[in-house]
Amino acid sequence: MAMSEDYHLMWKNLGLDLEAHDALLGVLGPAYQDIYLAQKNRPEGMGYFDFVMSEVHGLRIKELLDEKAAGRKIIGSYCVFVPEEIVLAAGATLVGLCAGADFATDEVEKLLPRNTCALIKSTFGFKLGKVCPYLESADMVVGENTCDGKKKAYETFKGLVDNLYVMDLPQMKSEQGRVLLQSEYYRFKSAVEELTGVAITTDSLKEAIKTVNAKRAAIHRLSVLRQADPAPISGLDALLANQVFFYDNPARFTASVEKICDELEARVAEGNGAFPKKTPRILVSGCPQAVPNWKLPLIVETSGAVIVGEESCVGERGARNLTDDSGKTVEEMMEAIVERYYQVDCAIFTPNQDRLAHIEEMATKYKADGVIHYGLQFCQPYLMESIPVEKALEQQNIPTLRIETDYSMEDMGQLKTRIEAFIEQLR
Amino acid sequence: MAMSEDYHLMWKNLGLDLEAHDALLGVLGPAYQDIYLAQKNRPEGMGYFDFVMSEVHGLRIKELLDEKAAGRKIIGSYCVFVPEEIVLAAGATLVGLCAGADFATDEVEKLLPRNTCALIKSTFGFKLGKVCPYLESADMVVGENTCDGKKKAYETFKGLVDNLYVMDLPQMKSEQGRVLLQSEYYRFKSAVEELTGVAITTDSLKEAIKTVNAKRAAIHRLSVLRQADPAPISGLDALLANQVFFYDNPARFTASVEKICDELEARVAEGNGAFPKKTPRILVSGCPQAVPNWKLPLIVETSGAVIVGEESCVGERGARNLTDDSGKTVEEMMEAIVERYYQVDCAIFTPNQDRLAHIEEMATKYKADGVIHYGLQFCQPYLMESIPVEKALEQQNIPTLRIETDYSMEDMGQLKTRIEAFIEQLR
Repeated sequence: MAMSEDYHLMWKNLGLDLEAHDALLGVLGPAYQDIYLAQKNRPEGMGYFDFVMSEVHGLRIKELLDEKAAGRKIIGSYCVFVPEEIVLAAGATLVGLCAGADFATDEVEKLLPRNTCALIKSTFGFKLGKVCPYLESADMVVGENTCDGKKKAYETFKGLVDNLYVMDLPQMKSEQGRVLLQSEYYRFKSAVEELTGVAITTDSLKEAIKTVNAKRAAIHRLSVLRQADPAPISGLDALLANQVFFYDNPARFTASVEKICDELEARVAEGNGAFPKKTPRILVSGCPQAVPNWKLPLIVETSGAVIVGEESCVGERGARNLTDDSGKTVEEMMEAIVERYYQVDCAIFTPNQDRLAHIEEMATKYKADGVIHYGLQFCQPYLMESIPVEKALEQQNIPTLRIETDYSMEDMGQLKTRIEAFIEQLR
Repeated sequence: MAMSEDYHLMWKNLGLDLEAHDALLGVLGPAYQDIYLAQKNRPEGMGYFDFVMSEVHGLRIKELLDEKAAGRKIIGSYCVFVPEEIVLAAGATLVGLCAGADFATDEVEKLLPRNTCALIKSTFGFKLGKVCPYLESADMVVGENTCDGKKKAYETFKGLVDNLYVMDLPQMKSEQGRVLLQSEYYRFKSAVEELTGVAITTDSLKEAIKTVNAKRAAIHRLSVLRQADPAPISGLDALLANQVFFYDNPARFTASVEKICDELEARVAEGNGAFPKKTPRILVSGCPQAVPNWKLPLIVETSGAVIVGEESCVGERGARNLTDDSGKTVEEMMEAIVERYYQVDCAIFTPNQDRLAHIEEMATKYKADGVIHYGLQFCQPYLMESIPVEKALEQQNIPTLRIETDYSMEDMGQLKTRIEAFIEQLR
């Protein structure tokens, strides 16, 4: 991508493989051009996100390094179960780490089974290929025992990353499960406090909760605006905002999303959409889509439909609930944090009925004509769950298409054929 | 298989699909003949296991139905984490349920992703095809949150089986993890007591621990005898004993194994083996091999090697440790049960270093020339773990071959070629 400065020295100092990293950016830049900038009738406010993406390995990394130089710690994460509130309250910064593109696959498959999901392989690929400046900037990398794939992969990842911290998670939302989450969040709090040398206080935690809630409230506002027909923003652009949610400075992100929402409100009032009115509306549900994984919305929105919501960790599953900030003590607010994250209806939980209820609720709220269940190949929790989900949705006369894919482009043609046929039946 | 009686009426009353079940037995009988009875120089004591297998859907089911008629409850299980001590102490019988062969695959793949391991698919296939008399006899079927595949599949299985009880399990052997296991074993105890109407007492629990320990001690004795060169029993036959461990009446099983051990001791003293002295010796490590999954030992032992140990749930991982029976109260013995099962080093745990130590220990103890890691395709925990395990073993100069397979016969030729080449390098 075209960046405003030459960051090669910064990347070199971070230990990146400059040649490989240049090659990566050399693919990403034109891809962003073709996928994002080629869209028609985009909100002007997306210019901010275009800039963010053009500087995603540049200016944002420089900012993080400036924070580090000023004594602030950077914590990297791969999952929405890592509470940003705790990180911010200890004066640290949380960033999502690269997991959205294939890289160094041959090297990865020496360490992981070929039958591993693309997201986990990507995590390893960015490390082995030395092309993720976020990972290399992080003072602590947080893994979590969510699915079997990640849980077991982190054992090997620990040998590649010298500051990996692994958070345990329950499999059931039982009394014991809640106690485990609570205990793990306290353990994480201690680890973050130890890393930063900053003790979390009532004030700092309250402030952090407000900051993260503001970010979520802004993205909620954006989501609600997508209820309009015509949808004022494309699914591609909305997904990008949901992706940048994990990378950007929280306050700046919030302000930028609010600004775009002001514009979208005006668009809705004028009946101005990213696509014409009556364009078939799709709810996407399933696995997370990390930057630069724009494969599904690209296919959908070049096949005559618009995506109006993401039931996903990078989307409403991850950002849905606010954390109660009314607690008077650190303990009360920690309890509110546990309560908030405990509601995340990831398919790692059994049973996980709330998720179906949320999909149905979102389909109604966003006036979706159909649901596409996005499953990453070999992601057992979501692939398993997608079959009963599809049955339940179809019983409610919500047309549903289950797709199973990875990060390669090999199945683009086949997916496009299936998705076009699905959209045709929604008209 | 040729059974001593006509059990069709019994099977019909259990709700089996007689035609499908006849077809299943029509395949199993000749397969057993070709794989087991065709072996040379078998211990005479294997006659008992041949009989058990010939009656595995006949006489043993009749026994269970007789127990039920006398008011005893039958509990079915798919995992070594279900404590038989608790079941026996409440006057019930625990049986392993069918999961070792493909059945009704087309129907199964309407409910489960195609990329699901053969063991889970088999569980569904036996239910959908109505061909598992154990499952149909069970008053309670116990599932467990071990791997993602099973955890999520049981959600769907619950719709097929009206008496499914799901046990939660920890993912880490942490303080919280131990508390969860303890709490789940107490919950299971209550559920079993409620099912049977029998309160577990100090005496009944002590007696049950002794019964299960005796079974384990017998199979340990059998294992130790396999240290001899020549090995006095084939891997196929030893695996069968380990498989029948899950089906047979415990006391009768113990007596039968002790009897065969007497014979094996004499064989060892005489230097009489199932294969000639100096036959390359293989330790099998990895996923469970449930009846009638004899694919790997069949290939190995018709390729010039002998299997001398199974680091597996159906094998030493499952039967290794005894439960301390010295407790003076139910609580003390429950604690001993938790302690005993907590040591099982299944790949669902993270980290799981004990398993590597046990593989190395077994390789030494059984004088293995090499290790074959047996992975079921799509079994993420074992496939993930197999890569660092292979690396660690190779570093200790223990030749290791990782295989990944399912229950079909399609890859027999390819596996045989790889295994023959592996054995060749051990000579």
